[in-house]
Amino acid sequence: MIVIMKQNATKEQVNAVIKRVKEEGLEVHLSEGKEQTIIGLVGDTEKMIDVPFRGFDGVSDTVRITSSYKLTSREFHPTDTVVDVDGLKIGGEENFVTMAGPCSIEGLDQIMECARIAKAGGATVLRGGAFKPRTSPYAFQGLEEEGLKYIRQAADKFDMKVITEVMDEANLELVAKYTDILQIGARNMQNFKLLTAVGKTGLPVALKRGISGTIDEWLNAAEYIAAQGNQKVIFVERGIRTYETATRNTLDLSAVPVIQKLSHFPIIVDPSHGVGVWDYVTPMAVAGIASGASGMIVEIHPNPSQAWSDGQQSLNEKRYMNMMEQIHVMEKAMKEVKLIREKI
Amino acid sequence: MIVIMKQNATKEQVNAVIKRVKEEGLEVHLSEGKEQTIIGLVGDTEKMIDVPFRGFDGVSDTVRITSSYKLTSREFHPTDTVVDVDGLKIGGEENFVTMAGPCSIEGLDQIMECARIAKAGGATVLRGGAFKPRTSPYAFQGLEEEGLKYIRQAADKFDMKVITEVMDEANLELVAKYTDILQIGARNMQNFKLLTAVGKTGLPVALKRGISGTIDEWLNAAEYIAAQGNQKVIFVERGIRTYETATRNTLDLSAVPVIQKLSHFPIIVDPSHGVGVWDYVTPMAVAGIASGASGMIVEIHPNPSQAWSDGQQSLNEKRYMNMMEQIHVMEKAMKEVKLIREKI
Amino acid sequence: MIVIMKQNATKEQVNAVIKRVKEEGLEVHLSEGKEQTIIGLVGDTEKMIDVPFRGFDGVSDTVRITSSYKLTSREFHPTDTVVDVDGLKIGGEENFVTMAGPCSIEGLDQIMECARIAKAGGATVLRGGAFKPRTSPYAFQGLEEEGLKYIRQAADKFDMKVITEVMDEANLELVAKYTDILQIGARNMQNFKLLTAVGKTGLPVALKRGISGTIDEWLNAAEYIAAQGNQKVIFVERGIRTYETATRNTLDLSAVPVIQKLSHFPIIVDPSHGVGVWDYVTPMAVAGIASGASGMIVEIHPNPSQAWSDGQQSLNEKRYMNMMEQIHVMEKAMKEVKLIREKI
Amino acid sequence: MIVIMKQNATKEQVNAVIKRVKEEGLEVHLSEGKEQTIIGLVGDTEKMIDVPFRGFDGVSDTVRITSSYKLTSREFHPTDTVVDVDGLKIGGEENFVTMAGPCSIEGLDQIMECARIAKAGGATVLRGGAFKPRTSPYAFQGLEEEGLKYIRQAADKFDMKVITEVMDEANLELVAKYTDILQIGARNMQNFKLLTAVGKTGLPVALKRGISGTIDEWLNAAEYIAAQGNQKVIFVERGIRTYETATRNTLDLSAVPVIQKLSHFPIIVDPSHGVGVWDYVTPMAVAGIASGASGMIVEIHPNPSQAWSDGQQSLNEKRYMNMMEQIHVMEKAMKEVKLIREKI
Repeated sequence: MIVIMKQNATKEQVNAVIKRVKEEGLEVHLSEGKEQTIIGLVGDTEKMIDVPFRGFDGVSDTVRITSSYKLTSREFHPTDTVVDVDGLKIGGEENFVTMAGPCSIEGLDQIMECARIAKAGGATVLRGGAFKPRTSPYAFQGLEEEGLKYIRQAADKFDMKVITEVMDEANLELVAKYTDILQIGARNMQNFKLLTAVGKTGLPVALKRGISGTIDEWLNAAEYIAAQGNQKVIFVERGIRTYETATRNTLDLSAVPVIQKLSHFPIIVDPSHGVGVWDYVTPMAVAGIASGASGMIVEIHPNPSQAWSDGQQSLNEKRYMNMMEQIHVMEKAMKEVKLIREKI
Repeated sequence: MIVIMKQNATKEQVNAVIKRVKEEGLEVHLSEGKEQTIIGLVGDTEKMIDVPFRGFDGVSDTVRITSSYKLTSREFHPTDTVVDVDGLKIGGEENFVTMAGPCSIEGLDQIMECARIAKAGGATVLRGGAFKPRTSPYAFQGLEEEGLKYIRQAADKFDMKVITEVMDEANLELVAKYTDILQIGARNMQNFKLLTAVGKTGLPVALKRGISGTIDEWLNAAEYIAAQGNQKVIFVERGIRTYETATRNTLDLSAVPVIQKLSHFPIIVDPSHGVGVWDYVTPMAVAGIASGASGMIVEIHPNPSQAWSDGQQSLNEKRYMNMMEQIHVMEKAMKEVKLIREKI
Repeated sequence: MIVIMKQNATKEQVNAVIKRVKEEGLEVHLSEGKEQTIIGLVGDTEKMIDVPFRGFDGVSDTVRITSSYKLTSREFHPTDTVVDVDGLKIGGEENFVTMAGPCSIEGLDQIMECARIAKAGGATVLRGGAFKPRTSPYAFQGLEEEGLKYIRQAADKFDMKVITEVMDEANLELVAKYTDILQIGARNMQNFKLLTAVGKTGLPVALKRGISGTIDEWLNAAEYIAAQGNQKVIFVERGIRTYETATRNTLDLSAVPVIQKLSHFPIIVDPSHGVGVWDYVTPMAVAGIASGASGMIVEIHPNPSQAWSDGQQSLNEKRYMNMMEQIHVMEKAMKEVKLIREKI
Repeated sequence: MIVIMKQNATKEQVNAVIKRVKEEGLEVHLSEGKEQTIIGLVGDTEKMIDVPFRGFDGVSDTVRITSSYKLTSREFHPTDTVVDVDGLKIGGEENFVTMAGPCSIEGLDQIMECARIAKAGGATVLRGGAFKPRTSPYAFQGLEEEGLKYIRQAADKFDMKVITEVMDEANLELVAKYTDILQIGARNMQNFKLLTAVGKTGLPVALKRGISGTIDEWLNAAEYIAAQGNQKVIFVERGIRTYETATRNTLDLSAVPVIQKLSHFPIIVDPSHGVGVWDYVTPMAVAGIASGASGMIVEIHPNPSQAWSDGQQSLNEKRYMNMMEQIHVMEKAMKEVKLIREKI
């Protein structure tokens, strides 16, 4: 960490900073240039992140050199982490995964039919919500435990894994009983108590990016999970909130190479929430694979016009099967692309 | 609710929409103009909000006529709600409130000293966090119950009320034992389980706007609380996330008149989080009162350079006392302004 | 266009709207439902877009049914427009184009070397700025006419086309003398006088999306060009401004399918400005092609560390050649993908 | 300027940076700490802003110490600049200004009536557009020179100054003939050719903040004007583009104290464009004055429902007169507030 003084900072102002640093048992490395004085902090700088140097007189700026996340960072673990979901591998060079299913579990028949379609297209993980975070308290909130039972049954029948959202600590034990992957929704990316709790379960966690989460916050959210000894984090890019209204969110595919540079955990994309209308889901799924993502999670429904939620962004069977055909072409192409990339 | 068809929509497409509406037991009011066909829904349209008409062929757009929040809306309760905190009134024409205190409770002496300063300036509510949501898992997370005891003690000594954040349902009972107002932080604005839980306590709830919460989402979040029979909601505008980095957030003061038009619950402003550096706090507090807010919540610290968190945005005693002198001028001016406004 | 009245709108308020509509010679189609009254406008609604119905008492909202752009819309011209740049085809099913070159033209040797590299990798259009829009008045502003001569010379030698930015009407004639494609920069997307002027030249125009331009504004900007009888517009997605700082901008690849649905003009992507650091350029170029774009524009430099501008986002020869190898794999894959897409 | 190396940067990487710095004739001040190496640049660092150090291997970040704007900065000119518009003073301690008038000049009668109303309420500058930047090419584009003649005539009759927008260099001479203050619209904040041209006129320039302009870009835009020897810049905060749709833009009142800290030029606010609907204009005008602004610019119309543009955000006579009564209370209160502020 370094503290940059203003050009006209006085000797007293510089000393006030140094004094504060030494109070915490750290040393300083002073660099007095012509234009500015820079104070480098030497020692356990983690103790200093809450010291409000920017509020000190004469201070222009502070710069962190090291990231606040450790276990999540690529430096800590230089090779790609492959998350093992009971034998299913996510991440690493050649392990593309497709997770598919409805927004909400609506009944046993519906989720069974979704599982059949999902599997037929090549998905290996079945998604579906039993607890739904809804903007309005009067909207459908999910079938809860009943729904969890149905999705487990459907996944088992088609030899798939289950991913479903856990919204609060109170229901964590219940959800964990039925699912293979715990999903943390966008609204909970910084629900730190919940992150700590899912970290403790040791189960794989799919961590959605917050509605307006920065990549730095997202990496720190993963750190809450990893700090509990859980190294099974999967990042899910699902679009961020911007001023543009032509799409529901703005799917930030550049997050894929950025996360891959900064962290060793795999990242997948969610084109359904990213765009919010079904006609744009397929092109963005294809682009998502091409951005280098380790897979995707997509909403399907046997009859989208009857869906209880998110119907406008769900693919029907025909569209999903067609998309998956494209995805397989893209997965093949990406293997070739990666070989070329390695030559440099 | 109305469904607007595309200009070239076919008869079959129109009929598909009508059929779907009737399946739910509603009626339609069809308006076939030259340029477009519009389908008005008649009956309990609340049942229809999850029907994905925008995904139907031939549909151009849907428009909600009624808001999804009811108890929170000005139509439901045309006069201002005055929230009574054990005798202290917040909201309505002349009840300006100032809540002041440190970001974190750091110890008994610190919170006592904060209470003394806060009260001297005219604040009637003492703020201070015992559970702190922090971006990094390695940052200070609060003194927890110990902190709650200290703030209660300090407030009692200076005859003030307490406001403090509750981060999760698990600690709600504990926090409720010590506080007069429950604060829901920005990261939890859409933690729907928590909103429901605080709604059930019947305690006054200060609901911060989410980091990128829309006003519509915020009103719906309040509805989660009100739907539990709790009519003691206080909105807190604390700045939204934008591209601008000169300030920590962008304090959206226009939210004050917008909320006042759409809802009957009072709104106060938080200039400290809104700007994030102490030199801009005072002008924005003054502007906040002038925007028509019912009060403010502000961070102070006896010695900001030693604060354990948010020191760069905390006011010291001298600056706080000076600001409060300005605030009192503004409160007087706003009474005059409101009298003028009533003439129209 | 329709005007939606509030639920409690009075007869007088409805009549005031109707009166205003009739003043302009249009008719109304009145739909009085139980919940709300809706007024459909019949006739030349274009005349009504400036009437401030939302400021009328009793009005809840207005909804446009038709877009304000006409010549740019897919309805006006259902098949893809292929822009012909002196024999080079951009747009349509199989015409991928790569435009490559330095940010600024720095001299004859530099642009010659850039042309050699660009051509070797497969680019057919040479980019390079002679007039540079710079945030600071003290930064390098371009070689002006001298630069234009150099880029023309370099492109001719390697049998390439030229694309270069025109910043103002005053220099339009000069720039048009040397270039094949006129580039409108992001800061000028809504410089309406300039759009009209480039429209009049009849030359192909590459129209960059504004720094925070909505897709609707972008389509209307194209309409300014098309309204002059110029049907040679190429959209360039170059990233939008969001709160995220890990990348220079947020490259919005979903703009590709959205534009393709709403307009017949081709769209290409600019990964260099989209991400702003060279290590992310290649993955986003690959993803851009996979999103369905008709090509890309990319910054290269023989020696990025010596570049006079944008060096941190420029690819050197080795990286560019490697990227182009990946791009060619992707172009082949996309042909296959499009064949699959047509089956539905 | 300082260059911060990564923790694992090699000696060679450090040397590459130093070599590049010395090539430009600058010296380095090397600070090799335990955690990181920092390279301070000594000399004319302005030459280095285009050197892409962030693209160099081993470089973590670069930090500018000095701002790129000079003449605009508070350091260059520590006291407030008072802009003299032919005797009318804008800026400084007690010179509140109100500029009022219609969005568009629609005819002589309309602008005369606007001038009468504006003056009656206390405005001293008459606003009105003769050249209108419109999203659609088919919307009303202004009366051009005819409109300029009308506004001059109206202002002269009521002894007011004129402010009107200039959209391009081609019409600058024409506009300058009729106006006292040249307005640069939001879409032209970074039209650098136009900024340079208006700088050369020596006339006062009201520089609106760009639709998504950062404060840093805005200060640099002012620098383009000031660099021509024109020290008569007035900043106009008019709202920025965010995700929120309840208001047309988000009026960023914190820009007022930020600009006042960083620059000596006055800043006024535009609540009309800031919120976009007339019912929120008055509270935001009042809050704007309370934020410390030197005045405001507001849209009025004798009959908003007949306005040719921006009618929904224009105040009628009664509302404007009522607002100005509130503004005068606020101006008085702010004098008191400033006296209190000086005590610290």
